Amino acid sequence: MQSGIPTAIEWLDGKLRILDQSKLPWEQIFVNLDNYHDVALAIKEMKVRGAPAVGVAAAYGIALGASGIETASKDEFLVQLNRVLQTFAASRPTAVNLFQAIKRMEKAARGGSIAEMKRSLINEAKRIHQEELTATKKLSQLGAEFIRDGFTVLTHCNTGPLATAGYGTALGIIKAAKEQGKKLSVFVTETRPLLQGARLTTWELKREGIPVTLITDSMAGYFMQQRKIDCVIVGADRIAANGDVANKIGTYTLAVLAKENKIPFYIAAPTSTIDLSLSSGDKIPIEERSPEEVTHIQGVPIAPEGVRAANPAFDVTPHSYITAIITEKGIIKEPYKKGLKEMGSGSS
Amino acid sequence: MQSGIPTAIEWLDGKLRILDQSKLPWEQIFVNLDNYHDVALAIKEMKVRGAPAVGVAAAYGIALGASGIETASKDEFLVQLNRVLQTFAASRPTAVNLFQAIKRMEKAARGGSIAEMKRSLINEAKRIHQEELTATKKLSQLGAEFIRDGFTVLTHCNTGPLATAGYGTALGIIKAAKEQGKKLSVFVTETRPLLQGARLTTWELKREGIPVTLITDSMAGYFMQQRKIDCVIVGADRIAANGDVANKIGTYTLAVLAKENKIPFYIAAPTSTIDLSLSSGDKIPIEERSPEEVTHIQGVPIAPEGVRAANPAFDVTPHSYITAIITEKGIIKEPYKKGLKEMGSGSS
Repeated sequence: MQSGIPTAIEWLDGKLRILDQSKLPWEQIFVNLDNYHDVALAIKEMKVRGAPAVGVAAAYGIALGASGIETASKDEFLVQLNRVLQTFAASRPTAVNLFQAIKRMEKAARGGSIAEMKRSLINEAKRIHQEELTATKKLSQLGAEFIRDGFTVLTHCNTGPLATAGYGTALGIIKAAKEQGKKLSVFVTETRPLLQGARLTTWELKREGIPVTLITDSMAGYFMQQRKIDCVIVGADRIAANGDVANKIGTYTLAVLAKENKIPFYIAAPTSTIDLSLSSGDKIPIEERSPEEVTHIQGVPIAPEGVRAANPAFDVTPHSYITAIITEKGIIKEPYKKGLKEMGSGSS
Repeated sequence: MQSGIPTAIEWLDGKLRILDQSKLPWEQIFVNLDNYHDVALAIKEMKVRGAPAVGVAAAYGIALGASGIETASKDEFLVQLNRVLQTFAASRPTAVNLFQAIKRMEKAARGGSIAEMKRSLINEAKRIHQEELTATKKLSQLGAEFIRDGFTVLTHCNTGPLATAGYGTALGIIKAAKEQGKKLSVFVTETRPLLQGARLTTWELKREGIPVTLITDSMAGYFMQQRKIDCVIVGADRIAANGDVANKIGTYTLAVLAKENKIPFYIAAPTSTIDLSLSSGDKIPIEERSPEEVTHIQGVPIAPEGVRAANPAFDVTPHSYITAIITEKGIIKEPYKKGLKEMGSGSS
């Protein structure tokens, strides 16, 4: 339990227990996953979602996959482990935390007996999980400094414990500010197509006792123009070396609106989200998901049958729109390239 | 019939027949309204919607209300007619076409016997309807010049025959460009909360044989950034004397994104949408509708029960974001104040 929110990802008796986020807020269904295929599928179907949470779930999934390999040959073990790693690499393309986790797990399986490797993989997954928890707690403390008493914060998508397998990023900062005794309220965009804002963020904020107002994505500009928003804080799925940020579709729009209305726009992310191997955001792969997520809402059609729909799941916000990137290692501002190089970890 | 789209508003045998737009595209239900209360309710509940269409429906509603007054006293007739006018004035606050129609109907009932006034009101309603048809056809022709062969146009909400009781405004321009033999395709924002883009605009465009791609409101910025959009055309609910434009919530956001990406942003509206009595857009009343339109989609909840939601139905785009306003009397550009004064009709 983390302050009223059920634990979204837990390693229990050699299995991975997840809270199915696609069913929230109406049903709290916990699923026990005992094989790596099911973990990869849960990631693909967004039962587990949020960049840090996806990284943690993949790490446990790889540990689970390794545990299930039955061979006495070390070579064969590594061949099969590689297949497991590939499965996760193919699950979702944009969030880099997934690939950072895969890389770390790959390294953790270098050396020792098969039994030792299996143990070492479980330990590495637990370490990744613990590190995300620590990192998100730390960055939330650091970021809370940007929130003044009486602020109204706008956030997008979902970035709390559910999304991070930790304390939260943008939502972690909001929680930390509240814990510091500041009065604040939050405007939450519903975040079409999958409504993470409407379904998950409002749910988490209500449980934290933080005043929340739900709006459609199209209303954010109106409230900024009306001077109702003091700052925007969102998470990130991948941060390129120059500070460009991939995040949930709609983020770029909020950044442009914030700049136009002279409202600070903050990115909150653990350093596991930084990808120094990409020089700029236009090199980040953007996942295109099923058009049915757009033409249907909760399974109900909202458009005439057969209408073509596009569904890019992320967009890229150029660094020039970003006031600061808040990480557990410190606050990064322009020039982003310098700051990110110093703080970016785990990337090639 | 207007090119494949069923007639949304029709005066038939002394009654008003409307196509219930809240049921589209799944059901084509025509409703015969024989008293003004039902017409006002249909406007309030958005069975009839779109600024020009609301003006036309209100005019017919007032004629219907007048026809139903049973008295031999002219004074009593005018008292009761005034009640009818007030009912429509209270139905929706933002679109000015409604108030222009009310003003015209009020004038049409000045002089003659009761029977003559009743007749005169019906004729004035028909004239308003005919004028909107002519105006939207004309402005569509004029606006089509802005669309070049091969263009991809982004539009918001719904502005075709359904919304205008005529040829269309933004969608009229798109149709006219197609009739001129230009190849074009259209990106349509779903337009939360009531999904006029997803439900109505895609439906109208499909019937016109124009290629359409449905996107969520949050995706417009992404496609502009990707250089997939050549111009943005939207309608208007009220245009202030300085060129500020009230239109469906989300319009301001599209205007800011267009400016940031150096994409032309056009407003298409008949001059009945111009309100010279308001010096700027911040004086336009913005309708706040039920929060349930945000927390529910097609009756299905999308957020935890009891979550607070805001629901401003319109926003105001300052004139500095607008490339041109396309009316039936001509194209208006900066300085808007001058051009609008010349072309604005029917306003105080």
